[in-house]
Amino acid sequence: MFVILGGNGYVGSAFQRSLSEAGQSFAVVSREQVDYSKPDVLLTYLRDMSATFLINAAGYAGRPNVDACELYKTECLAGNAVLPGIIREVCEHLKLPWGHVSSGCIYTGSRPDGSGFTEKDAPNFSFRQNNCSFYSGCKALGEEVLDGAEQCFVWRLRIPFDEHDSPRNYISKMMRYDRLLSATNSLSQLTEFANASIACWTERVDFGTYNLTNPGCVTTHEVVDMIVRHKLSDKQFSFFESDEEFMQQAAKTPRSNCVLDVSKAMAAGLPLSPVHEAVEKALNDWKPR
Amino acid sequence: MFVILGGNGYVGSAFQRSLSEAGQSFAVVSREQVDYSKPDVLLTYLRDMSATFLINAAGYAGRPNVDACELYKTECLAGNAVLPGIIREVCEHLKLPWGHVSSGCIYTGSRPDGSGFTEKDAPNFSFRQNNCSFYSGCKALGEEVLDGAEQCFVWRLRIPFDEHDSPRNYISKMMRYDRLLSATNSLSQLTEFANASIACWTERVDFGTYNLTNPGCVTTHEVVDMIVRHKLSDKQFSFFESDEEFMQQAAKTPRSNCVLDVSKAMAAGLPLSPVHEAVEKALNDWKPR
Repeated sequence: MFVILGGNGYVGSAFQRSLSEAGQSFAVVSREQVDYSKPDVLLTYLRDMSATFLINAAGYAGRPNVDACELYKTECLAGNAVLPGIIREVCEHLKLPWGHVSSGCIYTGSRPDGSGFTEKDAPNFSFRQNNCSFYSGCKALGEEVLDGAEQCFVWRLRIPFDEHDSPRNYISKMMRYDRLLSATNSLSQLTEFANASIACWTERVDFGTYNLTNPGCVTTHEVVDMIVRHKLSDKQFSFFESDEEFMQQAAKTPRSNCVLDVSKAMAAGLPLSPVHEAVEKALNDWKPR
Repeated sequence: MFVILGGNGYVGSAFQRSLSEAGQSFAVVSREQVDYSKPDVLLTYLRDMSATFLINAAGYAGRPNVDACELYKTECLAGNAVLPGIIREVCEHLKLPWGHVSSGCIYTGSRPDGSGFTEKDAPNFSFRQNNCSFYSGCKALGEEVLDGAEQCFVWRLRIPFDEHDSPRNYISKMMRYDRLLSATNSLSQLTEFANASIACWTERVDFGTYNLTNPGCVTTHEVVDMIVRHKLSDKQFSFFESDEEFMQQAAKTPRSNCVLDVSKAMAAGLPLSPVHEAVEKALNDWKPR
């Protein structure tokens, strides 16, 4: 029995769909029903459910965007840094294997030679670098808290998208924002992310941290060109002149834009398609709300 | 009615004694009885008690010392960074004035001219400087979470001591450690700290952050000389050759050693005696266990 914490969120729902598709049995827990931020409550629940694997898709990402985390620091710290530690404690006590949805947003840019950051590179967009959003700082602390965790996967998601129009979908955001920031990023097709995460466990991949983005990277301009080519928007897209203008006019806190290396996931045989193909496919299959 | 969270700890007990001494009524809450980490529980409790002022003396400092925080990161983050945010939320909702016991350990060293750090100086021993213990990082995050809090005092304690021999007392530690680290520090006589904190509220001092250490600073050698002069130990005290030797042989994480400026507290009329006098007095009145 898989148990998904935060199973009704944007990422948790993708796990639900993937597990259903694979014919796996699973339970979805909402914090309102079971206060899994309390170790004893979580422990009892997992025992009662005879859980065999836990997926932590719970976290605080801020609404409508990451700027909200600058205002809700307590929630952000509790949901992204403390909760993973509580789950670790309980899972280690129960000897229950589990996976944590982390984020690639703990990096900025790329390696000096333009290649992506590997799992061995220390986060460079974190409190410790003093250059980050409160959200990225908390996600990086969450990974620190999991350092050395037993039977634990840390799955790094990065800018999720799929074919379903949604306020959390990167493609939808591109279509809706008035002006865009020109940047180069690795992205995660959401269904592929969930499938790859689940495969970590079902295929008995080694525990540890995995960058789970689609191989390669895209620029904002490339994505916009693809949206236009697919005739999904007839808007005149406009771009901020610079990061500085973006920060002054549209954002309260710096954004991570980064490239991740996925050779570890590839070598483990996790199914992730090249990013341009994945975006192309989402646009081909686009389902407006 | 004062309410003290963490009232049975080392610092909380000093608040109890000061409030008793002053003939104030107060309630001491332990987390086992009232889970004040839950906003709704705390809110109901404070309403039921008709609290007029809250003192947050709860936190996670690590046992036997701050090295333990490197192992118990979750507890450290929850107790020192998230809990203050929860209390802020509840107190602001109730329009209840309150005070938070913070720490001077978010600084290291002194200003370039040798003077102490004021409340206007940004912490320089924190995650954002990437030079600190996990404990200091969490205490600094706790202050970030309280930035802009309404009707809130942030009281910075630093290396507490008094005349009662105790594992938490700086003088007791000096007497018991095999070897000492040579350093210059501001210290807080514990009773004076609690009295000054309470005076912030009873004397209607402006809300905000206050360094509450005894004016001045002392070196480890000075304190050891005073202990010897008072014939409280006939031990041969020995010192580490350097910070590096200390880190290699005795510590898992860097320690803060720092000098704080207390002119803001002095100007507010808070009662704090010069540090050499305060140490001298504790040694005069020394009460072995």
